[in-house]
Amino acid sequence: MPLVRISLGSPKSPEHVRAIADGIHRALIDAFGIPEDDRFQIVCANESLVYDRGYLGIERGGETIFVHVTLVRGRAVEKKRSFYRLVVDNLARSSGVRNQDVVITLVENERADWSVGNGEAQLVP
Amino acid sequence: MPLVRISLGSPKSPEHVRAIADGIHRALIDAFGIPEDDRFQIVCANESLVYDRGYLGIERGGETIFVHVTLVRGRAVEKKRSFYRLVVDNLARSSGVRNQDVVITLVENERADWSVGNGEAQLVP
Amino acid sequence: MPLVRISLGSPKSPEHVRAIADGIHRALIDAFGIPEDDRFQIVCANESLVYDRGYLGIERGGETIFVHVTLVRGRAVEKKRSFYRLVVDNLARSSGVRNQDVVITLVENERADWSVGNGEAQLVP
Repeated sequence: MPLVRISLGSPKSPEHVRAIADGIHRALIDAFGIPEDDRFQIVCANESLVYDRGYLGIERGGETIFVHVTLVRGRAVEKKRSFYRLVVDNLARSSGVRNQDVVITLVENERADWSVGNGEAQLVP
Repeated sequence: MPLVRISLGSPKSPEHVRAIADGIHRALIDAFGIPEDDRFQIVCANESLVYDRGYLGIERGGETIFVHVTLVRGRAVEKKRSFYRLVVDNLARSSGVRNQDVVITLVENERADWSVGNGEAQLVP
Repeated sequence: MPLVRISLGSPKSPEHVRAIADGIHRALIDAFGIPEDDRFQIVCANESLVYDRGYLGIERGGETIFVHVTLVRGRAVEKKRSFYRLVVDNLARSSGVRNQDVVITLVENERADWSVGNGEAQLVP
């Protein structure tokens, strides 16, 4: 159900892309308890990313990644904090991405706002 | 007013892209009653789509399409269900897209959140 | 904190892209009072934009730009109106973009929905 858009800024090897996508998905599983196979990710490497390197005193580098997640409303702030932490931990370990180079945005919607195939609204009881 | 982002995963012919975009737009008209000329669509064919083929028992194939719609809040669940059904029906008929290969996400905003040109907020009375 | 996605429809020179991105960022600063270095923009020039040229009587041309902004909830309608006006003014002056060719969509989220680096939720007190 979460829809994850990953903006890499420039082309990367398939292995690097996969490791980043895997690390973000694992963080969703571990922070929010979503099922392993509930995976919908869009990876884009052909966009220009424009950002300031010093906002809030964070020294972002030239390889900053933007992660934009649409998910059903209702996750506690502490779980969101845990998600952010897990993403940077996972990407540092698997892909050498620096913690300061990961920018994450969440947007919440409702259970009725999802159809994961067959034209049905599977998340509505 | 709806802004529709269509992620195809790989390049398609202009005719195929147009048929898919038309089918989604027709579903918006028929399910939600939006005007025919209220059309704003972004089609992207240069992203990598990563997904699990078996989530909720749906056997997605290698040609899954992601559709992400931003629209004004307030559509009834039954209209959303109707929209999902019409999208898969239209894409199957016009483009041979299989029902299980269409993933749809809605995100709602407010009338003040739209300017469709000229720097004005046309949807605010 | 605002995350801005700019869809240009076709490739443009780096100078043109920068002028458009700058004009939109300046409008965010002037309309909403965000800090100058609070800048996160994604510019995409490899998508197909599909739209009707006459919706609401606005004669859009072939160079219409879509701007999609995710930002924290709570901006007054008058500030949003000001933002729309400033975007078209800035883009007309700096880049020759016509007022009718700018389509803007806002989506609001919460302070807990942002991590701008280091895996922390910086906007939560």
